[in-house]
Amino acid sequence: MGKVICAGLGPGDPDLISVRADRAIRGARQIAYFRKKGRPGQARRIVADLLAPGVVEHAMEYPVTTEIPFDSPEYNRLLSAFYDEWTERLAALALAEDVVVLCEGDPLFYGSFMHLHARLQPLVGVEVIPGIPGMTGCWNAVGQPMTWGDDAMTVLMGTLPEADLQRHMQAADAIVVMKTGRNLPKITRALAAAGRLTDAWLVERGTMPNERRLPLAEADPDACPYFATVLVHGRGRRPLAEAEAAE
Amino acid sequence: MGKVICAGLGPGDPDLISVRADRAIRGARQIAYFRKKGRPGQARRIVADLLAPGVVEHAMEYPVTTEIPFDSPEYNRLLSAFYDEWTERLAALALAEDVVVLCEGDPLFYGSFMHLHARLQPLVGVEVIPGIPGMTGCWNAVGQPMTWGDDAMTVLMGTLPEADLQRHMQAADAIVVMKTGRNLPKITRALAAAGRLTDAWLVERGTMPNERRLPLAEADPDACPYFATVLVHGRGRRPLAEAEAAE
Repeated sequence: MGKVICAGLGPGDPDLISVRADRAIRGARQIAYFRKKGRPGQARRIVADLLAPGVVEHAMEYPVTTEIPFDSPEYNRLLSAFYDEWTERLAALALAEDVVVLCEGDPLFYGSFMHLHARLQPLVGVEVIPGIPGMTGCWNAVGQPMTWGDDAMTVLMGTLPEADLQRHMQAADAIVVMKTGRNLPKITRALAAAGRLTDAWLVERGTMPNERRLPLAEADPDACPYFATVLVHGRGRRPLAEAEAAE
Repeated sequence: MGKVICAGLGPGDPDLISVRADRAIRGARQIAYFRKKGRPGQARRIVADLLAPGVVEHAMEYPVTTEIPFDSPEYNRLLSAFYDEWTERLAALALAEDVVVLCEGDPLFYGSFMHLHARLQPLVGVEVIPGIPGMTGCWNAVGQPMTWGDDAMTVLMGTLPEADLQRHMQAADAIVVMKTGRNLPKITRALAAAGRLTDAWLVERGTMPNERRLPLAEADPDACPYFATVLVHGRGRRPLAEAEAAE
């Protein structure tokens, strides 16, 4: 009897996969990964040079991405049926041998795997191998300390309402915004209102060969991929007593 | 002419080091690491089985930790001189060959290396290899998704004033608190006031052999190591429209 092993792939450079996940992927005889219908898929691309000859591949193709509103009952129904179906298929495969599910970044941090994780646990052994989160790859691409001292860092989804984004941005020292894409104009307005726009970076494909980073103020807000990340670095908040002494 | 390579070690399990950092550490002829005076040092312990025979080790021992207040001018003066001295020594070593500096977690995320990073850059080539942040190891130790949907996650230092902690905790869906130790009673009060204490976990040495995790409400607030981490998992905030439709 095998188990389902979810291997965190990290931010995109295969050299940044953990030693344990690298070993699991190279040794896998069955792998599965999410992708948009008709696309090669980012996870599959990251491991292209690691796979053993003869590995059996299972592409888990989302039944829907942006064709119908993500807040409709139909969207939820389709996604739920999709995760149910793959739970059954992966659990059946794991009866015979280990199945390695590939997940970009860290699987337990805003990953699609968690929908399978909850469903699989009653049925089969599940092992999760952590990965370097995508945002960590992005701040390493910029090459400045993201946080130090007593900085508070907040991670936000660009899908949140503008007022919520602005409120969180005002309270934080360091800021990460994911799910950007067509939300970028809203994110940019919220950062400007919070007084942090001039410090913001936009990073696309951090640690990948076609990595791109630029000050957000110079970016075209209408041409931003969904998986680009906005970063505002912390300034190293000093402990309160020290700050008071310096004033 | 060599360079200074800062290798992120990840959360503690050597198997969770990235392939690139693992290769750099195994190939190193000169390594340096921070530690408290008279202690073996956590970073050195993580790489114990990876080091090449004959590697030259440079233990960078903090001149002071808790002996004098961290907010005193004397503390700042001693630390600053310490970083200046090691900048000179590492830059001199890198004239001859690469020096690998070991850093727990991710070097650009609340790491001591950033004090060397800024000083070294005008003098010598510096390469940073990202690592899995310590907090990521901790939420993998608990084994539940840390964030999903539109959750906002905030990372806080336990050294912040109680009112600031409480305010951030009330605004966030998922919460990470680092630098716990003797700040744990204050952190616990702030979580209780924010209504999140019953959801909180305390994780010590996440991913290490002596890992320990328990509900924070069951922890002894007076016996908490400084590097333990408090986690409150997000609940998967739904997009606004969906939440409204369900109400």
